[in-house]
Amino acid sequence: MKTVETIQDIRLALKEARRETLHGKPECTVGFVPTMGYLHQGHQSLIERARKECDIVVLSIFVNPLQFGPNEDFERYPRDRERDLRLASEAGADLVFMPGVTDMYPTPIRTKVIVSNITEVLCGSSRPGHFDGVATVVTKLFQIVQPDKAYFGMKDAQQIAVIEQFVADLNVPVTIVRCETLREADGLAMSSRNVYLNEEERKQAVILSATLGRIDGWLTEEGMTVDRLNGRIRDHIESAPLARIDYAEIRTYPGLDSVVSMEQWNGSQPILVALAVRFGKTRLIDNRIFFPEGGEPACS
Amino acid sequence: MKTVETIQDIRLALKEARRETLHGKPECTVGFVPTMGYLHQGHQSLIERARKECDIVVLSIFVNPLQFGPNEDFERYPRDRERDLRLASEAGADLVFMPGVTDMYPTPIRTKVIVSNITEVLCGSSRPGHFDGVATVVTKLFQIVQPDKAYFGMKDAQQIAVIEQFVADLNVPVTIVRCETLREADGLAMSSRNVYLNEEERKQAVILSATLGRIDGWLTEEGMTVDRLNGRIRDHIESAPLARIDYAEIRTYPGLDSVVSMEQWNGSQPILVALAVRFGKTRLIDNRIFFPEGGEPACS
Repeated sequence: MKTVETIQDIRLALKEARRETLHGKPECTVGFVPTMGYLHQGHQSLIERARKECDIVVLSIFVNPLQFGPNEDFERYPRDRERDLRLASEAGADLVFMPGVTDMYPTPIRTKVIVSNITEVLCGSSRPGHFDGVATVVTKLFQIVQPDKAYFGMKDAQQIAVIEQFVADLNVPVTIVRCETLREADGLAMSSRNVYLNEEERKQAVILSATLGRIDGWLTEEGMTVDRLNGRIRDHIESAPLARIDYAEIRTYPGLDSVVSMEQWNGSQPILVALAVRFGKTRLIDNRIFFPEGGEPACS
Repeated sequence: MKTVETIQDIRLALKEARRETLHGKPECTVGFVPTMGYLHQGHQSLIERARKECDIVVLSIFVNPLQFGPNEDFERYPRDRERDLRLASEAGADLVFMPGVTDMYPTPIRTKVIVSNITEVLCGSSRPGHFDGVATVVTKLFQIVQPDKAYFGMKDAQQIAVIEQFVADLNVPVTIVRCETLREADGLAMSSRNVYLNEEERKQAVILSATLGRIDGWLTEEGMTVDRLNGRIRDHIESAPLARIDYAEIRTYPGLDSVVSMEQWNGSQPILVALAVRFGKTRLIDNRIFFPEGGEPACS
């Protein structure tokens, strides 16, 4: 595994890797896993999936200042270079791209990739500008790495919807692969931010996945409506005394339109239940997608 | 020369052309000339330049609705498919990509590539949203064609500045080649929109290039200031009775900052004199760039 720190070096390393791979092969595919580092098994599962499907596997580690708000955790976002490199190597990455902020933003950036509509709800409404920062940096990374496939975890379901939208709208030649959320033994979705939680918060944080797990049962109750279900979800989350709901919403996926009736739920489109909940200073997200009978699963 | 009309077909044709070119060669370069059609010798000179420098030359013809304002000339913009194909072939294009509006925008586009600052002046202030439309469609075309070099005429100096800005900011792997403006015998910059002019307007339209040609002389006058020069430029344009100035401005290039003193003019950066003038319903633009002594020329 090779580690490179500049845009020029990753381009050279990729050119080299493509040339080597192409010996005797008609084509060479590049799989890409963009991350902010502080890797966990969730990231590793993305790398492993790319390893199975592509000739060259590139991991990027970049804590992108553009997607953090002024009062968010950019400065304290956890970083551990040595551990990250070990986990990346274990999972099978070929190249790790770890640019500095001045490599990615040598001058104040004047260009933004802005997705409208689906960025204005859920995390987009709690974190103004967040998805402009995500779409812009992911566009940059796609232009630098030029992957055939890019792998993202469904924990960030809205992020995937935003990335799929700009990739389609701008004709970026990459396939976005949705991958299942990995969970701790008690159900908590894996996240680099889980390290912020103190012991009691960590215990109560299981309420997100526990709530999502109860929905199937609630759906079978007679006379269930979207309003009642919404109330049931909020009440259940708030049974954890430290939980402060940022949002708990039911929307179509990936269009993220409001769902107001059970007819919509039972219609032809996937339905997302998305949660963002604070425990102390830590904001956690989780979600689950419900598919119409006979429909496509979210993750292939 | 091959003509294709869908995104899928141009991608296939390019893959094929690359494969054929690569026989026995280590690398294959693609040159790209994006246009709105109704080709003239200016476009042909871009194609010829690409022909000299690249293995495969792609021309696109697409009148992009996204870059026209509601009261602009999208509907009446001149189109002539047969003549365009003849001129493209003469000039040496290999592939002509002529997508329909529904190929480029199959659903209402939710993503925009937005460049700030340099898009807010000159044509950006006369034509709100114009450069969002340009940056977005050129990004799409770059993703579809994946050229090594793309060729643009300096008549649209601000457009080149905007394209260079987003290409740098988003790390798009393409080299932008600035090419000299081609002119009619009397000096009028070639433009597809010249066809809108009636006989008298056409005669008077020469005032744009004539004014730009007088600037060297005015600069040698003792006590010349930027204010006086600005006045001289406006007066000279208005000596043509049908001319209505949209803007006539002096700015740095490509940063497009205001120039207020002759010290700036004589400093280290290129200076742009940019004009937009209406004759009846037709809006014409032209410009000239003045270089610091010993500086780089705009066009290579």
